Amino acid sequence: MRAMVLRGRQLAVETVETPRPGPGQVLARVRACGICGSDLHAAKYLDDMIEAARRSGSAEWDAAAAEAGIIMGHEFVAEVVEAGPGAEAWAPGTRVTSIPVLVDPSSPTGMAAIGYSARYPGAYGEYVLMSAPLLLRVPDTLPDTVAATTEPCAVGLHAVREARMQPGETALVMGAGPIGLMTLLWLKHEGVQHVAVSELSPERRALAGRLGADLVIDPRETHVLEAIQAATGRQAPPVVFECIGVPGTLQQAMDLVERMGRVIVVGVCMQEDRILPLVGINKQLTLKFVLGYTPAEYAEALQALGTGAIDTSPMITRTVTLEELPAAFEALADPRDCKVVLVPGPA
Amino acid sequence: MRAMVLRGRQLAVETVETPRPGPGQVLARVRACGICGSDLHAAKYLDDMIEAARRSGSAEWDAAAAEAGIIMGHEFVAEVVEAGPGAEAWAPGTRVTSIPVLVDPSSPTGMAAIGYSARYPGAYGEYVLMSAPLLLRVPDTLPDTVAATTEPCAVGLHAVREARMQPGETALVMGAGPIGLMTLLWLKHEGVQHVAVSELSPERRALAGRLGADLVIDPRETHVLEAIQAATGRQAPPVVFECIGVPGTLQQAMDLVERMGRVIVVGVCMQEDRILPLVGINKQLTLKFVLGYTPAEYAEALQALGTGAIDTSPMITRTVTLEELPAAFEALADPRDCKVVLVPGPA
Repeated sequence: MRAMVLRGRQLAVETVETPRPGPGQVLARVRACGICGSDLHAAKYLDDMIEAARRSGSAEWDAAAAEAGIIMGHEFVAEVVEAGPGAEAWAPGTRVTSIPVLVDPSSPTGMAAIGYSARYPGAYGEYVLMSAPLLLRVPDTLPDTVAATTEPCAVGLHAVREARMQPGETALVMGAGPIGLMTLLWLKHEGVQHVAVSELSPERRALAGRLGADLVIDPRETHVLEAIQAATGRQAPPVVFECIGVPGTLQQAMDLVERMGRVIVVGVCMQEDRILPLVGINKQLTLKFVLGYTPAEYAEALQALGTGAIDTSPMITRTVTLEELPAAFEALADPRDCKVVLVPGPA
Repeated sequence: MRAMVLRGRQLAVETVETPRPGPGQVLARVRACGICGSDLHAAKYLDDMIEAARRSGSAEWDAAAAEAGIIMGHEFVAEVVEAGPGAEAWAPGTRVTSIPVLVDPSSPTGMAAIGYSARYPGAYGEYVLMSAPLLLRVPDTLPDTVAATTEPCAVGLHAVREARMQPGETALVMGAGPIGLMTLLWLKHEGVQHVAVSELSPERRALAGRLGADLVIDPRETHVLEAIQAATGRQAPPVVFECIGVPGTLQQAMDLVERMGRVIVVGVCMQEDRILPLVGINKQLTLKFVLGYTPAEYAEALQALGTGAIDTSPMITRTVTLEELPAAFEALADPRDCKVVLVPGPA
């Protein structure tokens, strides 16, 4: 099959071996796969990711895998092509998605990530292996590209659930990239009355407005807290979602949040960052670093997309083919894009 | 009265005006006042404290106060000398303590800190003003020096309460200065089965052992997590109390704590610090910065000292007179000392 391979820091579309479904697995043809910001990070900061994974006791992103070549891609919807032994209940042609994980009894945790190692290819290619017990059927009404946003949609849901918003609390979302916008969508879905979004890009600010933000702020033009005070009458937001993830934004979040407030750290800052702990102490802040989602949250995100309770379609700014994918990675640094989705087309 | 005044970065014992008790206030003679690490910090990093206070929206530590001269000291037990109007219920001779706060209707919050501004002298002097509604009577059996540990004892209690320890959870306390030891005492009092303490100073390690630590580690000699694994069978502690507060120790806490764990930041790091947010994300950590205590926790700490449920006396390594106090501030950098208490003596 054709797939985009990350080797060292080089991305190239290559012909690689098509995987074969083992027991309990299905082989599925990729219909769509979103490009994720953390994959962009990985291509740029692979050494940092490997070091952080080591310090965190994580098995992913080992240096050997980086040498061997990684096929990334973990935001996918695919169509069953062939069922391995014991997975025959999944008929060819069925559209499915799943958390990007395979059941793998040979792994210490019994699970292995899809799209983060040399062992299991992700969906930046024509085919992926999926585990039958984890498969979710995609509602018929849901277009492929929107179904491919299930994963980041679940990330936003998880961030909002972990924030445990209380009645009457307002929120500030820093950054209107895909994760910031997903967070916004779920905050409004959960009934949070006032959600402000700060974002540098005019295109992304417009998207935040379309997706229901109560206040959209260009922090270069407007004093963020003054704008929030004018709109809400509160001195500062009790909860700030940091969805940017570059050095300095964590301290900005600590400066912006209310005393006794919570900063939910969703943006993945790959480099060392600097903070003033004394601000955290003086304001008695809680910083909650969140990652991923539970399988139940993933299923809930898919269901919300299926019923239309959550509509992510406005943030899909374009689709690309497999051959266009390496160039699209470079172009994603352009903040006029938001969610770009790979559509490999018929194999 | 005689008092030690901080002016700029200079500490000197001077003769200053003795305050007069206003409505609802008592004038009290200081019987004992503990030297607090944050006062040491203040003398050294006054500019940083002023800047952090400004960023945090706090009214304390303004630059003008630093010029005018500050009498610090907020860990005090004192004896009522004279009652102002409406405070006559407090008879002269009564031994009292209180949270280091005065009721002050002229302040925006209705309260003003004792020992942090030029307006109200702290207890590094012969007399303090206290607010009658906040006074707590010191149990007769409690020596002055031990009663003067009520404040840091309440800090430890608050840190432990904020950690919301769950049944079966273990803890690591980083640093066995007074606050680390107070945290240890309350963790054991609350029934936490295994509390490890890491500390560089042999004298403070010995104190941690005397005060009930289940495991005492010299992190230069022993691998902290291996020692904890050997003692508890757990990979890492789910809760780490960072009670050191120098650059680098926050990241150490993030490295040592278990995945999904909580770092309770009690140590006050005055300088900018560096962290790896990716470790926080990968491990899905919560960092909780804590400060102070509630009035109820202060009263609970005093009660626990009075009944002997908490015994802080082993950590009081020496007492000093007012004239010796400036030199004692310098000497406190010596980690062989732990809690040093000012006893001004009869006025």
